Amino acid sequence: MRETIRIIGIDPGLQRTGWGIIESLGNSLRFVAAGTVRSDNKAALASRLCQLHDGLADVLHREMPHEAAVEATFVNKDATATLKLGQARGIAMLVPARAGLVVAEYSPNAVKKAVIGVGHGDKKQIAMMVKVLLPKSVFDTADAADALAIAICHAHHRQSPAYRLAALAAAHA
Amino acid sequence: MRETIRIIGIDPGLQRTGWGIIESLGNSLRFVAAGTVRSDNKAALASRLCQLHDGLADVLHREMPHEAAVEATFVNKDATATLKLGQARGIAMLVPARAGLVVAEYSPNAVKKAVIGVGHGDKKQIAMMVKVLLPKSVFDTADAADALAIAICHAHHRQSPAYRLAALAAAHA
Repeated sequence: MRETIRIIGIDPGLQRTGWGIIESLGNSLRFVAAGTVRSDNKAALASRLCQLHDGLADVLHREMPHEAAVEATFVNKDATATLKLGQARGIAMLVPARAGLVVAEYSPNAVKKAVIGVGHGDKKQIAMMVKVLLPKSVFDTADAADALAIAICHAHHRQSPAYRLAALAAAHA
Repeated sequence: MRETIRIIGIDPGLQRTGWGIIESLGNSLRFVAAGTVRSDNKAALASRLCQLHDGLADVLHREMPHEAAVEATFVNKDATATLKLGQARGIAMLVPARAGLVVAEYSPNAVKKAVIGVGHGDKKQIAMMVKVLLPKSVFDTADAADALAIAICHAHHRQSPAYRLAALAAAHA
């Protein structure tokens, strides 16, 4: 039962939310599209969240992915920065969930491990490895490259028996 | 130019999001409705955010408020708790903004000052003063009482010249 699965990875941020879409068939991965949704930092917070929502909803409508994955970012910065990220992340999870997609979450370490092979490394290394794993990929920002890395991470993990059991349980909840 | 303005106050939380609706005509306030939207803590995060979204969207659709106010909560707890709150808060701001409402933000101190008269006090005092200011009010949780307090705070502030200027600027942005 080999079927092509289209995955969207999302790297949420209030200023810039990166997105990347790949197709997974067995062990092979194919780049589909990637980009960045921006919000106007002069606008009110509620308007900025609307901009992120509408931008991501457009991408989902256009690209029709089957599954979604979002980075479970851990933040060391101040509470204000964490709250801001949380708000953007709420939107990044809501949009695919409302479209009926299962939304998986991965830690930054799991994402790095999936593309670099180890649980550490900087944004430059991630972008470089994304280019190796998806030779045809083009991305406008580091956030879009991160989003592709998150999608790759999900492509690896969704084949594990543990993930399949959890997805099955979620589908029957 | 005295007109009745219907205000929704929202106290966001992932577990429980309180909402309260009042009408403001000149200096008089009237209770309309209040309640609590809950999310199932056994469900996946993305599903819980959907539950909050759908619950709040129902309230807006039913009660048709003109303006919204959300508490700009400051959190002293750990980063995980702040991220969770941020996610719920993102939804609480998105839903009224998508419905075309201006969404004002108030600090917990401003909310307390509006109902208790000073910038400190506990949830019990807030609920007690909400009952004094809105004698006909009924609320099922402390979060719903807080949401009414946020709506009262907005009813006071929206009449200030500074707020009117800012709202005017936002309307023409």
